Amino acid sequence: VLSSHPFDADTAVEPLTDGLFAATVTDRWNALGERPNGGYLVSLCLRALAGVLPFPDPLVVSAYYLRPGVVGRAEVRTEVVRIGRTMATGEARLVSGGKEIVRAVASFADLGQVSGRTLVLNEPPDLPPPHECVDPYEGRHLPGVTIADRVELRTAKPAGWAQGLPTGQPTAEFWMRFAGGRDADALALPGLVDAVAPVVLELGEIGSSTVELTVHVRARPAAGWLACRVSTRHVIDGFHEEDFEVWDSAGRLVAQSRQLALLPRGNTRGNS
Amino acid sequence: VLSSHPFDADTAVEPLTDGLFAATVTDRWNALGERPNGGYLVSLCLRALAGVLPFPDPLVVSAYYLRPGVVGRAEVRTEVVRIGRTMATGEARLVSGGKEIVRAVASFADLGQVSGRTLVLNEPPDLPPPHECVDPYEGRHLPGVTIADRVELRTAKPAGWAQGLPTGQPTAEFWMRFAGGRDADALALPGLVDAVAPVVLELGEIGSSTVELTVHVRARPAAGWLACRVSTRHVIDGFHEEDFEVWDSAGRLVAQSRQLALLPRGNTRGNS
Repeated sequence: VLSSHPFDADTAVEPLTDGLFAATVTDRWNALGERPNGGYLVSLCLRALAGVLPFPDPLVVSAYYLRPGVVGRAEVRTEVVRIGRTMATGEARLVSGGKEIVRAVASFADLGQVSGRTLVLNEPPDLPPPHECVDPYEGRHLPGVTIADRVELRTAKPAGWAQGLPTGQPTAEFWMRFAGGRDADALALPGLVDAVAPVVLELGEIGSSTVELTVHVRARPAAGWLACRVSTRHVIDGFHEEDFEVWDSAGRLVAQSRQLALLPRGNTRGNS
Repeated sequence: VLSSHPFDADTAVEPLTDGLFAATVTDRWNALGERPNGGYLVSLCLRALAGVLPFPDPLVVSAYYLRPGVVGRAEVRTEVVRIGRTMATGEARLVSGGKEIVRAVASFADLGQVSGRTLVLNEPPDLPPPHECVDPYEGRHLPGVTIADRVELRTAKPAGWAQGLPTGQPTAEFWMRFAGGRDADALALPGLVDAVAPVVLELGEIGSSTVELTVHVRARPAAGWLACRVSTRHVIDGFHEEDFEVWDSAGRLVAQSRQLALLPRGNTRGNS
């Protein structure tokens, strides 16, 4: 572990007593709205759960976002729900200033030990190599969005919304990796699926608030760039899902997520 | 409410004290393996949460399956996590014989009051009218699968696996409704997305165990048959997702779910 990398440093948790951990929500993972990114908050929960469960890898996590995240001192209260032979389940509550911000339930396993049938009826994103790609947010100043300095993105052409021209197509494919040379591991994937701007920006929206995020981690990722695919197909009464796939450099699906999110009221611009 | 309908009778919960509810897991919703269906267990959790949260409709629920369900007396322990202005979140633990079977977190809202942008980039299943369809399990005896008497299905042609000829294509479209003339409401939808045989049976598998199920309820369904679409695209090391969509008789998406499930070991037959 490169303990000096921001992901490791900023998700570090200190065990206190009885499943309680001290944490610090740093300002280095702020998203649109200058609030801590929801994926980062999940990563804090998972770091704490990894400290109380006997398996190393999150297999599935569901996070409920109760209040906006707050930069500063926080605590993670964990509970061991069940420890099985090959899987263990725990719950984590991220609390800031006495208020619960995120409630997460997660099952952990040892993804180095799983085996069984494999049949994938899907293809990784078809992207040019990263060195032939551009930054999708190129030319777009994102004030206060510090997570853009933590996560590097590459895509065939810049995002429409970043150019002031939302495409009307809420789907995207791109490369992703941590800045600073740290490869993603299984524990980092649930945070990364929420690390980019919501794809509903291509519908002229200016943001979106996550209600719930569930991530399935399907394998430990190989080193290198991750190929991602994101889409929204159903915006209904202001609510929408966002589906996210992460494929590793060996061409394997390593994570799949879906979130339910809520558009801001009366803030639509562009081609709505 | 038709209190005599099996869904209402079998998901009834009796408030005891401090968020604790008495429940009875009946044998009328047994799935493959003659165990209570996971969707039915979620419905019990949701009935209890509806008793402690100030909004009527589940908006999103995530259920973690810790142990096989057991027919008989049970209790549901609820906790109010947060009550907001338009949404409230709670947690429910279904306990049988002192052991936690399911842990569920859910956010409730009033789906009769939500409004906002709507844009659907998907189509309902293209099915012949129900009266021109057949029962997908036609000719297949499913011993002990009592849920098959509770939920009626209609499809253009019988499921391949039910004819002893798995198609190799883990996808299906079909109509669904409760037997006995009860229309589905928002509270019933999270159970219904798990009420049919897993579509991996079309891969020659003989079953699948749900690890986690998350359901987004997107609208209150109109009366009548529900059109459903189910698919699995990624089977990796024995784990697979199952995606499920439910569209109502007015052609609107009313629920969307994904579950992570685990294939039985060494039990594959057919074209594996």
